[in-house]
Amino acid sequence: MPSSPIRKLVPYAEAAKKRGTKVYHLNIGQPDIETPKMALDAVRHSDFKVLEYSHSAGNESYRRKLVEYYKKRSIEVDYTQIIITTGGSEAIIFGFMACLDEGDEVIIPEPFYANYNGFAVEAGVTVVPVTSYIETGFALPAMDAFEKAITPRTKAIVICNPNNPTGYLYSRAELETLRDIIKKYNLYLFADEAYREFCYEGEHFSAMRLQDVDDNIVLMDTISKRYSACGGRIGALVTRNKTLLDTVMKFAQARLSPPGFAQILGEAAVDLPEDYFDETKAEYKCRRDLIVERLNAMEGVFCPNPGGAFYVTARLPVDDADVFCQWLLESFEHNGQTVMLAPASGFYTTPGLGKNEVRLAYVLNTGDIDKAMDCLAVAIKQYNLR
Amino acid sequence: MPSSPIRKLVPYAEAAKKRGTKVYHLNIGQPDIETPKMALDAVRHSDFKVLEYSHSAGNESYRRKLVEYYKKRSIEVDYTQIIITTGGSEAIIFGFMACLDEGDEVIIPEPFYANYNGFAVEAGVTVVPVTSYIETGFALPAMDAFEKAITPRTKAIVICNPNNPTGYLYSRAELETLRDIIKKYNLYLFADEAYREFCYEGEHFSAMRLQDVDDNIVLMDTISKRYSACGGRIGALVTRNKTLLDTVMKFAQARLSPPGFAQILGEAAVDLPEDYFDETKAEYKCRRDLIVERLNAMEGVFCPNPGGAFYVTARLPVDDADVFCQWLLESFEHNGQTVMLAPASGFYTTPGLGKNEVRLAYVLNTGDIDKAMDCLAVAIKQYNLR
Repeated sequence: MPSSPIRKLVPYAEAAKKRGTKVYHLNIGQPDIETPKMALDAVRHSDFKVLEYSHSAGNESYRRKLVEYYKKRSIEVDYTQIIITTGGSEAIIFGFMACLDEGDEVIIPEPFYANYNGFAVEAGVTVVPVTSYIETGFALPAMDAFEKAITPRTKAIVICNPNNPTGYLYSRAELETLRDIIKKYNLYLFADEAYREFCYEGEHFSAMRLQDVDDNIVLMDTISKRYSACGGRIGALVTRNKTLLDTVMKFAQARLSPPGFAQILGEAAVDLPEDYFDETKAEYKCRRDLIVERLNAMEGVFCPNPGGAFYVTARLPVDDADVFCQWLLESFEHNGQTVMLAPASGFYTTPGLGKNEVRLAYVLNTGDIDKAMDCLAVAIKQYNLR
Repeated sequence: MPSSPIRKLVPYAEAAKKRGTKVYHLNIGQPDIETPKMALDAVRHSDFKVLEYSHSAGNESYRRKLVEYYKKRSIEVDYTQIIITTGGSEAIIFGFMACLDEGDEVIIPEPFYANYNGFAVEAGVTVVPVTSYIETGFALPAMDAFEKAITPRTKAIVICNPNNPTGYLYSRAELETLRDIIKKYNLYLFADEAYREFCYEGEHFSAMRLQDVDDNIVLMDTISKRYSACGGRIGALVTRNKTLLDTVMKFAQARLSPPGFAQILGEAAVDLPEDYFDETKAEYKCRRDLIVERLNAMEGVFCPNPGGAFYVTARLPVDDADVFCQWLLESFEHNGQTVMLAPASGFYTTPGLGKNEVRLAYVLNTGDIDKAMDCLAVAIKQYNLR
């Protein structure tokens, strides 16, 4: 089982804080946005007397409510096609375990969310990367790159849209390329749409809207980022594939039920006003614009301007971003401050890739992002003069 | 992946209810006891603004609080030896995945909690049963029965104490027999103590109190039954084995964090007055006494008097308990009422065993248990006259 690459620097950050250094955390996708009060209040005002197991697929009232949410996003499903999971994490592991056998291969465009590796180990399957490149802003690799990676053991492709760690928002045309591939080779498409609500240019096109591949599409969803409710651990696996739903239900029944309190939160949140996301999106867009501008203004730094999520992956003029990120915490401070970044190497499977790239999560307000960028600009110069 | 044997009768129960028949549910371990109000209130009065990921091992404040709980149960651990899990279910799957490799064998006295089979499938390991018998009240099989089952692939023994589905409370001497076996063969002992608080005769002796086997013991715990908080999905994996803790943490980090709200509930519940369990235990003991008496008063029925949990496994004078339990829901009613039981065959791995046994969960009040037993007595006679 691999260690989390995002978390391995934590002890260095803790040591820096103990020395009195202020650390700006751009390393982890914990939003600072407040959880909607009306959704928290739904939990606080709940008045049941026994905290019972819910249905293994989640409360029916919540699943029926989610149908409304999806309908507004042009995703037509009925409540029996939704299984509530313990976070998006469980939706991913259920999808892997229900669709894939020991030794099967799953193709993922790299860089990708590092925990897919952990879930693949748990399910006994092999991750095969196809590389996307910073020069094209991490656009979907061409169809022939996928076809070269396909073997008789290939059973699925995973796509995270908009992407973690790159922020790239896949277009409808790119999704349709994926549709052609999965149709031709009869593969599953696992669509992780955790960041669906955070698109700054253009519309999100869900994999669930692809035509003629109903049995191949598995949506892995979560309320963690949507409502800044990461700690609730509520997600969903959504598919129109009846056989697959039956298999996933066996896994769901083995673990009895998803968490109770946060299902109440998720159900209430569907009734947030439609303009709820406008404010959050406007805030994230400001931050993205700022961080992209600040990064590209640094000599030797290149950062694409991604269309969604709250991450950017940038190239830095350093020899080894793993060493640099540790050095930032261990040996650097600027006016008593430093910055914590996620080295991108952990998001690649191909050895050597991402060595001079980092992921930055813009989960701080613009004032803090500015100060963090001040630190980074000074740090890059100092690091290269060591 | 196997289906849950407890849940396969659900459609028949739903059909019975649609026909207007009242169904007494003795089939599932959902307690009817109220969740302690002070613990629910801790959640309702929480005033955080962002529902953040907790630490992957659970909130430190909760883990420190649990140390107090365990200390009162003569279990000496420090908070770094506790990893909070999503229900006891996740503690079991983490234990299996962290300790066992594909193809390893794990010995479990049968009948056993059927979901162990599901978790074994998920972890790719083989369950090897050693049979316990209704005639001895489902006491621990003799040491040589375990030794006969041990192969070079055997890595662990699972014990559920007090037991689900039999209610049997293992004695200190039986635990010490297990200690001798795991020491001699260097095995893990996974101790599922979900029902620790529900012992009606004699003291509970935790596997964590066994001497000289610190690295071999893995406690799988949960607040689900303890505080009637099944829907919270909060458990814990506890071990003094440092290497194992490190491995489990990798699985914990991959799924980010356990549920947030119910950690607050669990932390508050540790401060319940020490006599909190007295009332609950007194209630369960009344129910047990009643159900055991009523069952043994029926001709041809045998039910041992178990020391803990809230289950009994009884032998009925029927040819096939699976058929009988379905017939109870499909073809029987007594004054507009019937009863739902769990056929015991699903709790055995050895084919043919448990064919005329059922598990009854005494999670209804004594009035309802009486009415359910009235139904059962009439049903057995009618069934055998068909």
